[in-house]
Amino acid sequence: MAEPRAPRDRVELERLLTDLPGPDEAAMAAARARQAELTKPPGSLGRLEDLAVWLHGWRGPSPRLDRVKVIVFAGWHGAVRHGVSAYPAEVTGQMVSNFERGGAAINQLCRSVGAALAVLALRPGEPTGNMLEHPAMDEPAMLEALAAGFAAVDPNLDLVAFGEMGIGNTTAAAALCVALFGGGGDWAGPGTGLDAAGVARKARFIEQALDRHPGARSDPWVALAALGGRELAAIAGAVLAARLNRVPVLLDGFVATAAAAVLARVRDDALAHCCAAHRSAEPGHARLLAALGLEPLLDLRMRLGEGSGAALAIAIVRAALACHAGMATFAEAGVAGASTSIR
Amino acid sequence: MAEPRAPRDRVELERLLTDLPGPDEAAMAAARARQAELTKPPGSLGRLEDLAVWLHGWRGPSPRLDRVKVIVFAGWHGAVRHGVSAYPAEVTGQMVSNFERGGAAINQLCRSVGAALAVLALRPGEPTGNMLEHPAMDEPAMLEALAAGFAAVDPNLDLVAFGEMGIGNTTAAAALCVALFGGGGDWAGPGTGLDAAGVARKARFIEQALDRHPGARSDPWVALAALGGRELAAIAGAVLAARLNRVPVLLDGFVATAAAAVLARVRDDALAHCCAAHRSAEPGHARLLAALGLEPLLDLRMRLGEGSGAALAIAIVRAALACHAGMATFAEAGVAGASTSIR
Repeated sequence: MAEPRAPRDRVELERLLTDLPGPDEAAMAAARARQAELTKPPGSLGRLEDLAVWLHGWRGPSPRLDRVKVIVFAGWHGAVRHGVSAYPAEVTGQMVSNFERGGAAINQLCRSVGAALAVLALRPGEPTGNMLEHPAMDEPAMLEALAAGFAAVDPNLDLVAFGEMGIGNTTAAAALCVALFGGGGDWAGPGTGLDAAGVARKARFIEQALDRHPGARSDPWVALAALGGRELAAIAGAVLAARLNRVPVLLDGFVATAAAAVLARVRDDALAHCCAAHRSAEPGHARLLAALGLEPLLDLRMRLGEGSGAALAIAIVRAALACHAGMATFAEAGVAGASTSIR
Repeated sequence: MAEPRAPRDRVELERLLTDLPGPDEAAMAAARARQAELTKPPGSLGRLEDLAVWLHGWRGPSPRLDRVKVIVFAGWHGAVRHGVSAYPAEVTGQMVSNFERGGAAINQLCRSVGAALAVLALRPGEPTGNMLEHPAMDEPAMLEALAAGFAAVDPNLDLVAFGEMGIGNTTAAAALCVALFGGGGDWAGPGTGLDAAGVARKARFIEQALDRHPGARSDPWVALAALGGRELAAIAGAVLAARLNRVPVLLDGFVATAAAAVLARVRDDALAHCCAAHRSAEPGHARLLAALGLEPLLDLRMRLGEGSGAALAIAIVRAALACHAGMATFAEAGVAGASTSIR
């Protein structure tokens, strides 16, 4: 297969989504058969067994986890001037520098789980439009960011996770969720740490933004452009590129999942290659995961973004594959199986 | 402090429990203060922050995770002849051989998370007594196993987890839970994979065993001897030794937690150095964790024992310490903090 090219316009984008590869059913069946022969009661490794089968589905027989990467996309948000975040706008750039110098949580987490880390700042310092008056991005700006995310995915990766940094971006994610799944300001949460008055202000902002962009409720691409952010568009593009290259994806928290949800609203099975890594403490994330029918691997009350929850889950996926590939079968180990007839 | 010696009789055992060291409060306070300065919104690393503070509490300032070990205790159960397991009794020894050859899940998990593994078979091949007629162990046999577990804990470990192998031991664990926390045969679950009729048979066995040993309901040591197993007594001893040496413990699933619960019923705060690693799919475990006031780190529907859930959680603890030790502070990174007054 020729390596897929990043979409240059909406027609190309929609064409890519009509022709998504599915999982390797034969490799999955073989993985399930091996799981039944390993020296453990059937099913007793729980979700580790499912993860091993999932890896086989997207990588084929004998998957490896040699090339594992977290890509963090950073974007700047016009909404910050409306008091929707506990932190000032300049923190986005300061945190990008912190990533580059190795001082952030995601740097430590990637090292801890053996993942490479890349950071991509999208139009650094340039905020999205004021969504109370204009779309956050016009369609070319949205496509530019989406294509940047698409191009950031090395087709040879064994596993990838996408993180984000963008002061103000839980507001964009919540507004996007309203457009994609209904509801209103009740998608707003504290984000980096708003108090109750701040959350109420954020909820009003989101409802006003939705009123300003009624077309967002019926067109996921319009929603992403009008209410999203560059890092969200980039994640949507990156998740799509991963699917086209059959690279399995660990979905991080509220913002990353909201970005990926755009694809799921265009095509129901668009996230079949994705596994939800961690349920964020940001309240909208549990609701969003339920809407997508995804059950996260972890729930550690984290709410940091950066890809932190997804990075942590890489350790779980590594353990799952280690068991699948390394365990002896009942026959190899000379261990008796379950009684066929129990007294 | 002289290295504590394994107890030789019940008087020595009870004396050890009256003088348990507590956490290093100053190290914990310093760890909390550092967490507040790291480049993330306060609390946004959720339980990773709690884990870092917990490690400081038991290991003191600048804890490391260089010496991390999983110790699997194996025991043989007389109850197996009553049809309480889906697997035949000889599987216990076969799985011990499998551990020794590196073919079991726990071998792969330990390698994946960077932990050493030791396996200790307690009186190999010798089943406990038929608890419908006699105690599973008399007091000297229980103390012998407990002392073996106690002696197995290297006082210099940075973190330890205890696993178990013993066909029939979820029956022992459930019976022990009845004695320690009340209730009856409703503590019985499928274990390695009993069907509904098998679970009902196991429940009746447990109720008959409790009727035979009424003293078990009022004395946790009598309960451990009459209803437990050698690997359960060893885990109780090992958890106690870890506490005396200030080594933090990751508690594994239903059987390991039931064994540790004996200590908690003797002294309320005896498990302060323990963190529940994983909620087993064995139904009694959720009930037991609730009774102990413990919230597990993971819930991956595993139900294997061997220390598998605890081994997996080692990766989470490593990530927690990596963030704590490696992240830059706001001052170091030149990142602005939260707005003191939000518009």
